[in-house]
This record gives sequence, structure tokens and C-alpha cells, in this order.
Amino acid sequence: MDRDKLEDSILARGKELFAALGDEAPSVFNKDWWTGRLMDWSMRHEDFKLQLFRFIDVLPCLTSDQMLAEHIREYFSEGQNVPAVLKLGAKSAGIGGRLGMKVVGGTIRKNLESMARQFIIGNSIPETVKNIGRFRRKGFAFTLDVLGEATVSEQEADAYAENYMRLLEGLQSGQDDWPALGDGNSALNWGCAAKIDLSIKPSALYSQLNPADFEGSVGHILDRLKPVYRKIVELNGSMCIDIEMRRHKEITFELYRRLRSDAEFKDYPHLSLAMQVYLKSCDRDIDQMLDWAREQGLPISIRLVKGAYWDYEVVAARQNGWPIPVYTHKAETDAAFERCAERILGNHDLCRLACASHNVRSVCSVLELARALEVPDERYEFQVLYGMAEPFRNALVKTTGRVRLYCPQGELLPGIAYLIRRLLENTSNESFLRQTYVEGRELEELLKAPHLLLEERSAEVAGEHSESSGSQSDMGRFANQPFADFSLAEIRDAFNTAIVDVRKKLGKTYLLSIGGEEVETGTLVESANPARPREVIGRVCQAGAEQIEDAIGAAEDAFGKWRDTPACERAGYLIKAAQVARDRIYELSAWQVLEASKQWNQAYNDVGEAIDFLEYYAREMIQLSKPRYMGHAPGEVNEYFYQPKGVAAVIAPWNFPLAISCGMSAAAIVAGNCVIYKPSNQTPVIGYTLMEILREAGLPPGVFNYTPGSGAVMGDLLIEHPHISLIAFTGSVQVGLGIIERAARTPEGQRSVKKVIAEMGGKNAVIVDDDADLDQAIPHIIDSAFAYQGQKCSACSRVIVLDSAYDRFIERLLAAARSVSIGPAEDPANFMGPVISEDARRSITEYIDIAAKEGTILYSSDVPDEGYYVPVTIVGGITPEHRLAQEEVFGPVLATMRVKDFDQAIEWANSTRFALTGGVFSRSPKHIEQCRREFRVGNLYVNRGCTGAMVERQPFGGFKMSGVGSKAGGPDYLLQFMDPRTVTENTMRRGFVPIRSEDEWIE
Amino acid sequence: MDRDKLEDSILARGKELFAALGDEAPSVFNKDWWTGRLMDWSMRHEDFKLQLFRFIDVLPCLTSDQMLAEHIREYFSEGQNVPAVLKLGAKSAGIGGRLGMKVVGGTIRKNLESMARQFIIGNSIPETVKNIGRFRRKGFAFTLDVLGEATVSEQEADAYAENYMRLLEGLQSGQDDWPALGDGNSALNWGCAAKIDLSIKPSALYSQLNPADFEGSVGHILDRLKPVYRKIVELNGSMCIDIEMRRHKEITFELYRRLRSDAEFKDYPHLSLAMQVYLKSCDRDIDQMLDWAREQGLPISIRLVKGAYWDYEVVAARQNGWPIPVYTHKAETDAAFERCAERILGNHDLCRLACASHNVRSVCSVLELARALEVPDERYEFQVLYGMAEPFRNALVKTTGRVRLYCPQGELLPGIAYLIRRLLENTSNESFLRQTYVEGRELEELLKAPHLLLEERSAEVAGEHSESSGSQSDMGRFANQPFADFSLAEIRDAFNTAIVDVRKKLGKTYLLSIGGEEVETGTLVESANPARPREVIGRVCQAGAEQIEDAIGAAEDAFGKWRDTPACERAGYLIKAAQVARDRIYELSAWQVLEASKQWNQAYNDVGEAIDFLEYYAREMIQLSKPRYMGHAPGEVNEYFYQPKGVAAVIAPWNFPLAISCGMSAAAIVAGNCVIYKPSNQTPVIGYTLMEILREAGLPPGVFNYTPGSGAVMGDLLIEHPHISLIAFTGSVQVGLGIIERAARTPEGQRSVKKVIAEMGGKNAVIVDDDADLDQAIPHIIDSAFAYQGQKCSACSRVIVLDSAYDRFIERLLAAARSVSIGPAEDPANFMGPVISEDARRSITEYIDIAAKEGTILYSSDVPDEGYYVPVTIVGGITPEHRLAQEEVFGPVLATMRVKDFDQAIEWANSTRFALTGGVFSRSPKHIEQCRREFRVGNLYVNRGCTGAMVERQPFGGFKMSGVGSKAGGPDYLLQFMDPRTVTENTMRRGFVPIRSEDEWIE
Repeated sequence: MDRDKLEDSILARGKELFAALGDEAPSVFNKDWWTGRLMDWSMRHEDFKLQLFRFIDVLPCLTSDQMLAEHIREYFSEGQNVPAVLKLGAKSAGIGGRLGMKVVGGTIRKNLESMARQFIIGNSIPETVKNIGRFRRKGFAFTLDVLGEATVSEQEADAYAENYMRLLEGLQSGQDDWPALGDGNSALNWGCAAKIDLSIKPSALYSQLNPADFEGSVGHILDRLKPVYRKIVELNGSMCIDIEMRRHKEITFELYRRLRSDAEFKDYPHLSLAMQVYLKSCDRDIDQMLDWAREQGLPISIRLVKGAYWDYEVVAARQNGWPIPVYTHKAETDAAFERCAERILGNHDLCRLACASHNVRSVCSVLELARALEVPDERYEFQVLYGMAEPFRNALVKTTGRVRLYCPQGELLPGIAYLIRRLLENTSNESFLRQTYVEGRELEELLKAPHLLLEERSAEVAGEHSESSGSQSDMGRFANQPFADFSLAEIRDAFNTAIVDVRKKLGKTYLLSIGGEEVETGTLVESANPARPREVIGRVCQAGAEQIEDAIGAAEDAFGKWRDTPACERAGYLIKAAQVARDRIYELSAWQVLEASKQWNQAYNDVGEAIDFLEYYAREMIQLSKPRYMGHAPGEVNEYFYQPKGVAAVIAPWNFPLAISCGMSAAAIVAGNCVIYKPSNQTPVIGYTLMEILREAGLPPGVFNYTPGSGAVMGDLLIEHPHISLIAFTGSVQVGLGIIERAARTPEGQRSVKKVIAEMGGKNAVIVDDDADLDQAIPHIIDSAFAYQGQKCSACSRVIVLDSAYDRFIERLLAAARSVSIGPAEDPANFMGPVISEDARRSITEYIDIAAKEGTILYSSDVPDEGYYVPVTIVGGITPEHRLAQEEVFGPVLATMRVKDFDQAIEWANSTRFALTGGVFSRSPKHIEQCRREFRVGNLYVNRGCTGAMVERQPFGGFKMSGVGSKAGGPDYLLQFMDPRTVTENTMRRGFVPIRSEDEWIE
Repeated sequence: MDRDKLEDSILARGKELFAALGDEAPSVFNKDWWTGRLMDWSMRHEDFKLQLFRFIDVLPCLTSDQMLAEHIREYFSEGQNVPAVLKLGAKSAGIGGRLGMKVVGGTIRKNLESMARQFIIGNSIPETVKNIGRFRRKGFAFTLDVLGEATVSEQEADAYAENYMRLLEGLQSGQDDWPALGDGNSALNWGCAAKIDLSIKPSALYSQLNPADFEGSVGHILDRLKPVYRKIVELNGSMCIDIEMRRHKEITFELYRRLRSDAEFKDYPHLSLAMQVYLKSCDRDIDQMLDWAREQGLPISIRLVKGAYWDYEVVAARQNGWPIPVYTHKAETDAAFERCAERILGNHDLCRLACASHNVRSVCSVLELARALEVPDERYEFQVLYGMAEPFRNALVKTTGRVRLYCPQGELLPGIAYLIRRLLENTSNESFLRQTYVEGRELEELLKAPHLLLEERSAEVAGEHSESSGSQSDMGRFANQPFADFSLAEIRDAFNTAIVDVRKKLGKTYLLSIGGEEVETGTLVESANPARPREVIGRVCQAGAEQIEDAIGAAEDAFGKWRDTPACERAGYLIKAAQVARDRIYELSAWQVLEASKQWNQAYNDVGEAIDFLEYYAREMIQLSKPRYMGHAPGEVNEYFYQPKGVAAVIAPWNFPLAISCGMSAAAIVAGNCVIYKPSNQTPVIGYTLMEILREAGLPPGVFNYTPGSGAVMGDLLIEHPHISLIAFTGSVQVGLGIIERAARTPEGQRSVKKVIAEMGGKNAVIVDDDADLDQAIPHIIDSAFAYQGQKCSACSRVIVLDSAYDRFIERLLAAARSVSIGPAEDPANFMGPVISEDARRSITEYIDIAAKEGTILYSSDVPDEGYYVPVTIVGGITPEHRLAQEEVFGPVLATMRVKDFDQAIEWANSTRFALTGGVFSRSPKHIEQCRREFRVGNLYVNRGCTGAMVERQPFGGFKMSGVGSKAGGPDYLLQFMDPRTVTENTMRRGFVPIRSEDEWIE
């Protein structure tokens, strides 16, 4: 292929197409239209755009005039910031008054709804069928997408599939009225493409979709997808499997392969797959799909799109610590589009192409590539989005004859996500449409080959980089350990393999480690798999009084040298330990799956958090180790710095068996203290892995001593021992208060007042406002309340719902709860597993009995027979005076509370003696701000679940009876493990003074 | 006077004088000489100069070869940094070995001692007499200054005076051998000036010199000065009263006036006064002195000097918060010199001038001014320093005939201060000598009129200022409240007046203040003046259980609103309160003098510290109130901020009755808590003034409640009350541990675990190394141990002295202790007053009995009969196992401990259960560094006393049994009064994300 010639022809074709566009701007950019004006304003006022988009998001929830008026006031600063365009059409000029506001509110709603409707072909099946006919008469084919893909329960997934079935029925009866497209009266469009065409989002067909559970996810989706596809085949229609988030990509591809090669359907050709070229993996993905098709001898279809979830993908990658999966420059995506289109067109015998783009350059490139590669017309078509770029689609249909409109169909409420995606696309700086119509960029510039733009750019970037080289600190900025990306098969395989390997090591005997020596004792306890109590994880020696004395002695012996080890060296051991843990991450996770019944992601995140603590405290300590120079007076030098306290007892819980153990220990150690570590007797083997990690990192003997033992014997000895300076405890409030009380007695020979850092319980509430986005709230609440069986101090155990939202919320919540599956944690298909022990099971069950008396059991799931299972339990009718509203259950029991208004919600949320975490789902800026001030908990989460605090990002810990002390993983945490010192030197001798730059000397 | 003509003649004269200087550099700058080379090196290597000067300072103390070798290693990095010049003359090339080091050490010592001798005319009287004769033969008159002005006791002051007497006797017998100067064989030099001339530093004549005690200081000095002067008069000699630090200026002037107008001496004219023109007050001072002389009809003499304590004056001003009293640019001083000289020359009928300068311009200016003003030759003379600027003095004696050498006389050890002052002068950037000989600046430039240089400079400065205007924060940077400058009569008067005024208000009844209301109760306690127990300061209502409940209720009522008051507004109240206290500072100090028996400076500093706490915490809170944004992930905003804890009990001590009360309360309040304040029942009236201050600042009712009461009743109720969230306590370890223990019990209804911030006792040691500067150590130790009767938790109660320094140290220490006077604090003549109460007196007396058994009472002072006095007590023979080495006495009892080496000193210093303050006097860089690491106390002071921590500069507080919690007046203090919170907002809605600048978005 002559590339230069191709470029020339693309340019010529592009100019032709531009000429055909004429002067008419597409409706969305037509300033005569209201929408155009609003977009124009948004593009020029970034703050307004932000508020507008967020307001549009909440708009469908604003069911009353009052809510509408209040939200307009809150979003647009008392209406002052509402641009004239937004209220265009309102009779009243002023909007200060109540009446004025109502009028303006109504107008704004009408205007925005009409804008939304512009992108939706119909909100009922008859309307849709009618409009399809109208557009077919203009020469456009269609594909229909049913809005409402956010399904939080199996019930909703069923309903979503059912919508498709009903739509198909409507199309079946309506299609007779539609004109043929292209070749006379063929049953096919243009003689090649099915007349009825649906686009379907597979994620909507299974509410419990989980990349870790690959097979289960594929299977459940297929169960709902097959009947729909069967019906389509029956109607000689076509189906395209859409793709949304990258994390579902492999599942989606697998669905396509299974369905395409299914014995029932393999001879039917009209099954298409959408592929996103903004993914850096797209070339490889297309190759694999083409290889598969050729291998199977099955012709396929690909709709090539650029991708509409760019912001989301970047944010998700950043938040999870993953590489950014999408191209970060528009030209890269444009270049990928042309590359991938060429790849498909080159295989036109095997694969039909749908070119879905509004970019003139991209479209012309496909047209000219097809011509150059001599691709028959029926092997490719063009697709544009309904409601956008009308002049372009008109010109395109004139040029190519084969244009399909992608038509969302259904109600406005579930369509908001779609609307915002479109607005975002239209107002992004890099949008081709924006460039074409708004900024009027030069034609040649717009038609320039993207790979040439990239070459120019990389030359620039190289220049920048050479300037900013060097000067990086050794350790670099802290970054959280990435989450496991279970969408990758190799990670799933590694996890499975690790579980198999760890299972081979079960049942061993674990000795104490004191002063670097292994110490055996006569008393052993067995640690069991909560899902199979007869499976012994390990037999663990128990420390007694003698071992405690030995351990404290060893710690004291090690202390002097360890204290005097420079902070950056101490930090170095933590960094090494983090690397050891990273190298063993699957194995360490597998121990948690088996000993603590943590689900895959919960287990992996616990290890990740342990790594985070090591990396974070190492860096914090290096900062804190630099003396601060105080004051500015010459003739004196004042240094302010910290020293360790001495020997620390670390008393750890079982629910974050590695993370919390490691966090408390690492903080103590890096600050220069020596540690006596008592793991929970529920998870002593995981505790042992912490010892192994620190030993492998080369920590000197005696700095960390592993001494499991019973709380009754050992806890008391440690707490009351006069040579313990510091106790770091995480656990229940009962135990915590006991430790605080006993540690405050000063026995003879005690060297310092004992410092107790105690993280205790919670009775955490999530508030659901009447304007909450329930699509978001419900999965977050299910996760906060029931993930790891609710056995987190941060877990949501109360959900406080505003009266007007209550029924709607509860119905969806119960449906969502019904959808989760329960069973051993080693199977990723299970959302919930057993609780930690028979004692725990009994205690939680007692609370369920109390719940039944105090309120109503709204839902109680079934549970497996073997193992310490407790049902997922949702309780209704709870008010603050109930025990269920006040006491920590530490299990999968969620109390729901109905409040009359938001003030009462906050009052009730604050009404316990705990103050650990809390959440609120609201889209009222005023209510969010009110929570920020008045919902007084250690960690408040707005519009997300109340568990899963990340080191550095969400320093964790509460107050009231939830804790004493500063937040773990936060900037004040290490201070608690040290005492501040000041050294002042009078530097003046005989009137002679060295002057430092900090000194306030003479002007 | 024709100024232009004058300038021309000065310039001409200057050129003439320069020509007469010839090519010979003065010895100190002659590079052929060893000293010249060393100075040259120092000027080019600022770090070396610093170390050299500090090394010279310690040199006389290095009594053994080993000490010498070690110090050379420590000061000059193992000898690597010793420039060749320093060891010039050493035979051995290498200095690594022990032997090499010894040789080099000896050489260095010899070289430096010979340099020192260059500035000292003789170290014995015969040598001095002989050398005077030698210089008289060269045409120079002399004035003798006896080295060793650092007198730490009355015994030393007597010895110093005695030195002068012996010197006079020596001169008396020696003078016959001296040739006449000037006019043939006159008994006077040049026919006008006395032959025997002494310069005397009055501060050396009274070890307890104290500007606050103006009359006493003047009187004591006169007692020793008169006999010397009488002897001088007898010998027909002359005396010049020197001036050193500015703070003694008024005393010095008064001494001159008293002596000059004394009936015995008023007819004798040869009494001279040195005046420093670098003082901004010099013009005014000279006018006053001339006016006085004219009024009295007494001719006077003034030696005009520029001033040799410039660094010291700047440092002292900066450290004390005073305006800088000296000119900060050399040209300003030079201009003042000419101005003042002209003023004196204009009054030559009344005042004879001695022009003491090495600056050619200054000298020529005096010469030409005298000529222009037609001043007779006998009315002025010139003075230069012995050992410096030889060519200049030679040229000057040739030109004028009347040159006097200022000749220090005596031993090297006490002469070090003088030596360093001279070296400093020679190597300063602005030194005329340095400019003349080292930098070879242009002649015309050197002779330029200083007032013209100033005009040029102020034009430059104006330019700079206009650039850097604006952009200052409202509140400005924190600065400590200045100390009272008792050298100013108006401040002494204000103090006296305040004591008289306050005494009029004694005996009133004080009510409680609860929720802004005054509350009277039936129980009253009387607060007494410890110096006159029958003098009732006030009668104070006592709170009982009912009032505690009311106060806690009032605090809780106020809490909600106060908590929600913006931090900057809360800070604003503190700033207002600081201003109120500042406006009332003398009155508030006077209350302390009478109720707490604080000495003037102690009382004033306590109020100053209260003001500092208010100002500092206000600023700290404003900083802390700004939420910190955590992490960098887009799509979420994490805010980290603090909220108050609730109702705080502030339980205050009597020893810093306003400062500590105010510090703890201000911290609690500004952080948003409400306070129940229990002052000590020893100082409840001072506590009441805190309430008044906060009320006057407009603090809302209930935020601060004043509830005095007995510790037994009220302390317990407060500590155990479930609605108290926070206890801030300062006091004894016994009470503190009790509070900690009881607060850790969690009663029913308690809302949070009580936080206890406790500052407790100390058993503070000061180490005296064998190379310590005892001139510095002894006054600091006396002050640390006995100021405010030793009733400070920071007070020095153990002094640990190295064996080889012990005898010398103890002898001087005891002499110094014998020199202090004891009596009521209202008389500033008294260094020490009574202890706080009869109970305290009894308890301390018991410890003195124990001391007598455990060790030896080395000194026990007399005390007045009335009042709670305890003698100043110094105990010898104490070792760590003694109670005197372990228990806090809280009175003026100092245990001395003798140790074999520095390691043992640190071991003993650390050997108590306390760790509050400590001090070390050492000039070994290695030992100082060792203390920094191993002398583990909250506040360590190197080469200064261990009391008097300043807010911000020396954050105060200890660990072990000295305290729990962070340092008062430091950056971590306020954190203890608050709980941290995190609010996380998920900002992504429908894939739409607002991006903040903090976000890690895409490259």
C-alpha cells in the first residue's frame, strides 16, 4: 500500500466530507438551540460545567418542587450562578422568592429533560418503533441499547433481560412498517446486515459479576444472554455485545466466543463484538480474536469504537495502583483506531467491520483503507450515536449509504449515565466534535494523520524530560500496594496455586521466637479453618509467664542498639520486609483464606495493607527523624526531635491478621522500639508469617519477638509488666478499656507511664439521603456490611434511610442481599464465608435473636451446614434505644433505621458511644457539608462504602469509645511511639556567635 | 564651621597619615608572622575561624596533653582540618599517631599562647611595669586594664579589686624608672594627663550586679571602687570607668556621677568615663552627661570608643525580644563617632576627650575637628589598643604626640575573652584594620565620610524595600513577649508602682465563675504572702460537688457553639487575651510577687510566658485548622483535620501560676474544648486574674470556668466525672500518677476514654565537664538551682562534676552561693525569697535533714525570721543510691555528685526515674554530641542553665515519670486536645471526575 497516496486520498475525502457538512452545526452545538448554548457556556466555565453535570446526575431523583429548588440553590450558589441560558424560558426574571424558584426550577428541569431526550430514541417501545421508522426513511439503520444497565440484584438483572425480550417483541411487530434500506426490499439492510439490531451490555445481566470468579460470571451472564440471542436469531436479527469497563473485557470476549461457537448458534453469522481502541491492549486483543475466528472457521463482526469510559479507566487505575490501561493522548487512540481498522479490513473475508466514530479523519481513513484494500461494501458499515452530529451523519449516509444509528432506548432516570457520558464527550477539550464545531480549527490540522501528530509530540516530550532529569530521592514517594487485578488470568491462577500449595503445609507446629531463637513450650493450641473446622491450620506453642519475661528481657537487650540505629537504616528494614511480603503475596493471602476465611480480594488487600504500613511508616520515620530547628534567635540552636519509648507490647486482632499486626509492629519498630507481639489465637499462623517476613528482612534479634498466647494469661502479664512502655492494641472495646485501666496503674519499678494506643469497636452507620444514587449506594452498603462477614471494626452495621427513600431502598437492598452467595472463601464465587469461630457464631446468633425481638428480620439467608456460618441478616424497625443500634455485633447483621429527615439521620448516626466510621450517600452539597461537620466519626465516607481505608489516603481510626490515639496510616501515628526531646545549645562563647541561615540576625 | 573645608582637610590629613604608615603591616596582619598567617587563613575559611575561636576559648582549660590532643581532634576533625599554619613549627609532619599528636598539640598551644601574649602587656606586675617603661620610651602613655572581669562571687569581686590595689602599689614603686612624656620632667604626661592611668570594669566589682536592683548595684560597686580610686588619687593617677554591656550602662553612668561628685574626690579632675558610640543612645547619653557636668560645675573626661560587644548586644536583644540597641552598619557607628567627638570637642572647656579608635578616618576627623574648633592640645588625646596596629600607633604618636596604649594586664586564662574580642574585631568584614591591611581598599574609599556612605546606602535600601512590600499574613510570625529590660528606669518604676497598687487591693473575696456567672460559696480559703504569712492576698470561694456539676453543665452547654466557632475566631480570642495581659503586665507580675513570692524577673517572665502561650497556640491552631489533603488519587478527596474532645479539666500548679494555667487552658480552648479550671489553692488569686483576662477578651460564657477548690474534694470529682473528656495537669508525680490511674477507669456514661496530659516532676542534673567554662557554668547553675527558690520542675537539683574539675568548681560554687541575698521577692535586691508555704518549708527541711545524713552539707545560708524561708543548701558526697539523688525536693537544695569520667556523668544523670530537663557545661564537641544522644531528658541545655524554656524555641516537657504527653509550647502540643478525623468523598459520578491540582492524573 502506498502510504503517501493513501494520506492524499484521506485528505481529499475529508475535505469532501467537510464540504458536505455545510454550515449547519449539529444540534448539540447549534447555538440557536438551548442545548447548544448550555454546552457553549459549560465549555467556557469549567466550574459551572462541573456543577451542571453533577446536578444533571441527581436531577431524576428530585421528585418534588422543593427538592428541585433546594438542589438548584445548593448547586448554583443560591441561584446566583445559574446562567441565563439554564433558565431560558422561565417567565419570572427574579428567582429569589419561593415562587420564583419554583418557576425557574420547573423550567430548568424541562430544559434539561428535553436535552436528555435528544439522545434517546424513545422511552417506550411504541415510541421507539415509530422513531426507528422515521430514521429508516432518512436512510439510517439502527442498533438499540436498552438504558438501565446498573443492576444491583439478580432480580434487576432478570428485569433487564426481560426488557430486551419485550423490546424484541415490539420490534418484531413494528418492523413491517419500516422501509427497506439499500437494495430494494431485501430482508436485510443493504443486502447484508440484519434489520433488527440490538446492543447489549453483558455486565447488566449478572449483578454479582466478579472478575475473580471468571467461570461463574461468564456462566451466569450466558444464562440470561442466551434466551435474548435465541429470540434475535429467531427474528433474523443481529446482536452486538458491548463492552464497558476494562475489568470486564476478558469476560466479554469469552461470552462472545462461547455464544459464537455454541452449537445452537454457530451457523448464524450476525453476532458482533464491540472493541475499544483506547485500550492499549486493543491490537493484541483484535489479533487474538481474529486468530480464534480463523482457527474455529467462524466469521465474526467487530464494532470498532474509541471507548467512552476514559475518565473512569484512568481514575480506577490510579485508585487501584494499576498501569493506566488506556491511551492518555487522543492522537494515540486515533492512531490505534486506524491501525485496528486496517487490521480488520485486511481480514475482511473473516471479519466484518462497523466503524463507530464521529471523527471525519477516522471515518475517511476507514473509507480509503477499505478502498485501498479492495474491501467489498457489505463487509463494513458506519455507526454514529443517535442525537449527535446530525450534519455529519447526513453527509456520511450520502457518501457511504451504510450508516447505523446507535440508539439508546428507555427511561430518563437510568439513562442519566448515558447522557453524562455524551455531554462529557462533547465538552472535552480533545473531542473531535468540539474541535470541529466550536473551536473552528483549521481543516488540514483536523485531518492530519494521528501518527504524525504523535511523532511531533514525542519530540516535544523528549525535550521536556531531558530538562527535568535527576534529583529524585532514593525511596520515592509513597504509593499504595496495587490491588490484585483479578481480571488477569495469571493472577487468578497464582491465587489458586497458592491455596493448593499452602494447603500442603497445614498442620505444622509453630514455635515462639524470642531474641531470635525458636522457643518450644508445652502448651499448644490448634488453629482451624472456619469453613471446615476439622481442618487444622497449625499447632501453635503458647507463651507463659517465663517466656514473657524472656521476651521482655530480649527486647530490652536489643533496645539500646536498635534505638541508636539511624532512622533511615531502621526504615530500610521495613522496606526490605515490604519486598519480602510482596514476593510472597499470594502465599500470604492463601494463609488468610484458609485460617481467617477471607475472600480472595479481602485477603490480598490485607497483605497489601501490611505492605503499605511498612512502606508508609518507613518514609514517615525518615521525615520525623530530621530534627526540627525551632525559633530564630541567634546565639542558640534548638533542635526538636523524637526518641523511642522502649519495649512495646503489640496485641493484635484476628480480623486483619497481617495488616494490623504489621502496622502496629512496624510503627513501633521503625520508631526505634522493640516489640513483644501477641497475635490473636484465632490467627496465630498468619502472625507467624509476620515474624518470618521481618526475620527475612534481616531485623536484628530481639527487636521483634513472636509470643502467641492466651489473652487471659499473657495479655495481663504484658500489660502490667513494669518494663513495658507502650501497648498497641486493636480489638474490642471491652478488652481495650480493661487494658487502659490496668496499664494506668503504675507498679513499682515502672520506668514510664505506659502509653496505650487502642483501636476499639464501632457501630458504624451509613446514611441514605432521599436523593442518593441507589445504583451506587446499594452495592457499597452490601459490601460494607457483609464483606468478610461484617467482621470489621469499620463495617456498616446500621443503615439510616430517609423516610421518603426508605421503601425503594429496602426493596432493592433486600433483593441485592438475596443475590449474594455464601460459602467457603477459597471459592471466589462466594461473596461471604463463615465467621471466625464457634464463639463468634454463637454471639452473633444471640444478637440475631435480640434483633428479632427488637425489630423485624427483613432477610435471613440460608447458610451451608459445615463451618461457622451466620446468615446475612437485615433487620428493620430499629431505633436508637435498641441494643442492635448500640452494640457491636461483629457479624453480617445490618440494622436499618428509618428517619424523618436528614437532621434526625445525623442525630441517630451520632447516637452511639462509638465514633469510628460512617458513610453518607447524598447528592445534596448542603447535606454533604453538614455531614462533614456534624457526622462525627473518625472516618467518614461520602458516596462510597465505609470500609477499606487506604494507608496515607484515609488515615484510619476513631474516637469516643472507638479508640484512643491517632490514626493508623496517617501523619500523626508514629508520634505516639516516641517522646519528643529538645536540645538547646547556647552557641555564644565570649561574645562570639556562629550565625545560621535560620537566625533572625540584622536586616 | 565650613563642612566642605573640613572634609578636605580630613582627607588631606588622612592621606598624610596613611603615607606615614609606610609598608609595614601591623604584627597581627603581617603574614611573615605566624599570627598574621593564621588570621589570614581564618578570614578566608569561615568554618575554620569558627572552630579556631571556639578552640581558643577552651584552650586555657586543657591542662593535660591528652585533653589538648583530644580537643584538637574534635575541633578540627581528627586533625584533617588543621591548616599547616596552626602547627607551624611542629617537627613531626604526620599527626595521626599519639606521639605526633602530642607534638603538634604542644606546638599549637605554644603558637596560640604567643599570639595571646601579643595583646597582653604583662602577666605579672613586674613585667607590666617593665614593659610600660619600654613603651614610654617610645613615647606612649598607658592605661592598664586588669584581666579577669568575670567574677561569680563576692570573694572574686574582692580579689579583683585587690588586684588593682596591688597593681597600683607596683606602679607606685615602678614609676620612678619611667621617662617623662612630653613636656620635660613634668609629673604629668604631656603636662596635662596623669602618669598612672587605670581602666576599670565596674561589673567585675559586684558579682550580684542586677539592673533591677539599681541602687544596690551602684552601692556595692562603689564600696569596692572607692578604695581603688582613693589610692589612685593618692598617686596622682587617673581612672577610667569602662563600660561593657549596654544593660549596665545606667549603673555605670551613675557610678561616674557619684564618684565624680563625691565630696572626697570632687576637686580631683582625673576621672574618666568610657562611652560607646555604637549605642543608638550615645548622642543623648553624652548630652545628659555634659549637662550634668555643667550643672554640677565639674569638669569631666570621656573616652570615646566605638564599642566591642556588638555581636553580644545583637544576640542579647534578639534573644530577649528587645530593639537592637546598637547601630547595625559600621558607617552608622563611624558617623556617630564623629558626631559625638564634635559634641565633646565643642565642650572642651568642660570635657576632655580621649579618642579611642584605630580608624584613620575617625582619628583624622577628630584631629581636624579639634583644629577647626580651636581645641587646646591638652584637652584631647588618642588611645589605641596594645598589640594592635603598630604602624598606625607609631604614625599617630609622630603626628599628635599624645597617644595612650590600652594595656590589658594579667593572666592568659581570664584574658581569653579579651583575646577573642580582639580577634573578632580583626577578622570582621567591617573592621577598618582588615580593610586597610588585608583587602587593600582604595584610600579615598577608606577616608570617605561615613555620613555620605550612609546616604548612599539608604538610597539602595529604599529601592529594595519598595520591591518587597505587601503580602504579609494578618497575624505575623510568632515572637516571644520581650523580657523586661530592668536597666530602664521607667520599667523599674512601673514595677514598684504596680506592687504598691496591688497591695491596696489585697484581702478581697473572690467568687467562682461558672457559665459567665459569679458564684459565691460558703467555704473560703485565704491565700497568704509567703514572705509575710499574716498578709492575706485574697479570700477565695471553694467549689464543691454542686458547683463542679454546674460548671461541667455550663461547659457542655457552651461546647457545641464553641466547637463550631471557626478556629481563626477562637484564635482571635487568644490574641485579644494576650493583649489584655500585655496591658496589665506589671499588675499581673505584682500579684505574683506578693502571692507566689516570685522575684521581679521571675514574675514578669511568667506573665510573658502566658502571653507567649496565647500567641503561639493561636497561630498553631490556625495552621492545624486547615484540612490536610491526603493522597493523590483522582476521583476522591481526602481531608484530614481535627476536632476538639469536649470538656477539659485544667488542674494547675502554683509555681508558674499564670503561665501554666494559661498555657493548658489556652490550648484546650483554642482547640475548641471548654474548660473547668482549678487553680492551685496556693495561688487562687493569680488564677482569678486568668479568668479576668479571658473575660476581658470576650470569651463566650461557659467556655472557661473558674472553680478553685481543694484537690481532695474537687480534683477527684473532676477526674472521675464521666463528662470530662480531657484532663490537663501539671504538678507532682504522686498526684499525676493518681490522676492517670483514676482517669483510666471508665465509669458508666463516659463518652470517651479520658485523655490525660500530665507534666510531672524532675530531678534534673547539670553535668560540669573538665573543660567547662566555669565563669559561665556557675552563675547558670546558681540560677537554675536557686532562682524562685528552686521551685521549678525544671530546676537543677543535681550537679554532676568531673573529678578533675570538682574542687575548683565547688570552691567557686560555694563562694557564689554565699554571695546571694535572701529576703522578700518584692525587693529586687534579693535573689531568693521564701518557699510557697509552711508545708513546703517543712518538707524541704526534712530533705535537708536527710541530706545531712546521706552526704555533707557544704553550705547552708542564713534566712530571715519571718516567712517560709529555707536556706540555700548545697550538699556534697551524694551518689545515685541516695534519696537526694532520686527524689524531687522542690526547693533550694542542690546535690553535688563527683564522677570519674564523662560516661559516668551521663550514666548518673540518667539514673533517676525522671527525664525532664538537664544541662551540660562542656566545650568538647564530642561530649556535647554524646549528651545530645545519650543524656535523655525532655529538655537538654548545652552551656546554659536548665530552666527558662521559651515557648516555640524550647518546647517544654519530659518523659519517663516526668510527663506523659507532648511538649508545651511546641508543635505537637495542640494535637493532644483534639481527635483527628478523615472525610473521604468519592467525587466520581457517572464516570465524571473533577480533577484537582493535587491529583496524580495523567502525565
